[in-house]
Amino acid sequence: MALVLKTDIERGDSWHRAFRALLPELELRDWRAPGAPEDIEFALVWAPEQGALAKFPNLKAIFSIGAGIDHLASDPDLPPGVPIVRMVEPGLTAGMVEFVVMSALYHHRFMLDYAVQQREKVWREIEQIPTFRRRVGILGLGVLGSACAEKLCDFGFQVAGWSRRPKSQVGVESFHDADGLTAFLKRSDILVCLLPLTDETEGILNAETLGALPHGAAFISVGRGKHVVETDLLSALDSGQIGGATLDVFREEPLPPDSPFWSHPRIVVVPHIASMTIAETAAEAVAQNIRRVQAGQPPEHIVDLDRGY
Amino acid sequence: MALVLKTDIERGDSWHRAFRALLPELELRDWRAPGAPEDIEFALVWAPEQGALAKFPNLKAIFSIGAGIDHLASDPDLPPGVPIVRMVEPGLTAGMVEFVVMSALYHHRFMLDYAVQQREKVWREIEQIPTFRRRVGILGLGVLGSACAEKLCDFGFQVAGWSRRPKSQVGVESFHDADGLTAFLKRSDILVCLLPLTDETEGILNAETLGALPHGAAFISVGRGKHVVETDLLSALDSGQIGGATLDVFREEPLPPDSPFWSHPRIVVVPHIASMTIAETAAEAVAQNIRRVQAGQPPEHIVDLDRGY
Repeated sequence: MALVLKTDIERGDSWHRAFRALLPELELRDWRAPGAPEDIEFALVWAPEQGALAKFPNLKAIFSIGAGIDHLASDPDLPPGVPIVRMVEPGLTAGMVEFVVMSALYHHRFMLDYAVQQREKVWREIEQIPTFRRRVGILGLGVLGSACAEKLCDFGFQVAGWSRRPKSQVGVESFHDADGLTAFLKRSDILVCLLPLTDETEGILNAETLGALPHGAAFISVGRGKHVVETDLLSALDSGQIGGATLDVFREEPLPPDSPFWSHPRIVVVPHIASMTIAETAAEAVAQNIRRVQAGQPPEHIVDLDRGY
Repeated sequence: MALVLKTDIERGDSWHRAFRALLPELELRDWRAPGAPEDIEFALVWAPEQGALAKFPNLKAIFSIGAGIDHLASDPDLPPGVPIVRMVEPGLTAGMVEFVVMSALYHHRFMLDYAVQQREKVWREIEQIPTFRRRVGILGLGVLGSACAEKLCDFGFQVAGWSRRPKSQVGVESFHDADGLTAFLKRSDILVCLLPLTDETEGILNAETLGALPHGAAFISVGRGKHVVETDLLSALDSGQIGGATLDVFREEPLPPDSPFWSHPRIVVVPHIASMTIAETAAEAVAQNIRRVQAGQPPEHIVDLDRGY
């Protein structure tokens, strides 16, 4: 039983170690030298070249290394009938919850303003707003979005979520569909984007939608760069419509050196690190799914390619 | 029934509003013009001038506006026999939990390093460490410390606390006394100071204790400035023994413009705002205690002046 792995070299080691402990009968093959294609039953990949997966005739499942699967869905030559599995693993979820809660608290507590004051050596209190008066809105209530929502509720924020279909989560106000979007945005002082990237969600954050937020709202971009019309976001930041932003994802990554995001005083830029799959915990999720497939069951967390996530 | 209030002018209004709703029979008198001293039965104060409280002969309780009471304990002419009451109110606790969790996550997720990278327009991932491998240590497990410990546990951090006497809190390793301090420091990757300021704790964070932390540890200073020997902290930051710090409190406040803290690349400076008493929620705690006193009961949260907190 062989799995072909496409990841960066440093992380390869941790996957090898983790699988050796969990599933010693699994042979790990390197993407660049996978050996006989017909040996390969599983693929664990991030952003494979288009058409490359079609070369393995006996694939039983394709596992995405990250939470998003847009890097796979964009391949017109995916091998037909092979299930694509999103990454759902506790390390990835925990990392996203840490990053989103930290960033929400950062904007909630005016840390961008305090950073300016520090640079100017100004000692001035900004009046604290209790979380129960602060409304956080999460675009996308999937595994990551709902985990973030739960933790933000624990801090007493007013939390709402927007998704394609209505969702039911304790303490979280649910908005859905195109009709619910404006009402959702109007009540979101801090907006978090955790949507999947699909034809429907590309460019969803633009002049019109950003303009529907309360004046001075904060924006935390942790979905995909293509959710955002970047020039519209810059205009909204420059006008003060958006008061501050934490940006983890961009249309072009690495973010080019001439991007105005780098030096904008109201933007925190991080290099797509909001959450990383942790091989140690993720290998367990993959191993479990491999065992399911070997036992004739379908893997968990299969992607619906028609809806795009 | 009259209460004398010493706070800044902007906040005075919110106290007036809150007490009017909760305890309309309470007359609020301004510190600068309190009227007949014998009318005053209660004082709600921050940092009164030494000896000033002794001028009210009929005081039944002195309420501190902030969590600390060192601003009162340092008065050699406190009216004898009048209970001093620390501020325990949900708004203050929530604010501290927000600030400490945000700051712990900030250092945990290498945000100081990412800020440097942003300034230099460098796109580089730093390997994420799961919270279950990160050890947070909280100096002081009082109302604020234990609330912070609980929330940090929720994120999966390894949390320990140090206090004068052993404490029992689910999920929190307890260290105590001078003997336990070194062992506690040695295992704390992120150190939070939430101690009361007493003769025993003044200067507790010095070259020796900071040197006992793991190399590169983060330090979150939200107790009092006098807990810290500031030159020792600077040396520890310059040598890399302390990897980063968030400082909310200082020996001299406002922090003087010539302090090297302002421009140190490994320090986040905020102007003593980690948590503020929220008049709206705090007035309820004070009103409840006033009712207890009027009913002949002792107020809750009385300070033991012998131990100093």
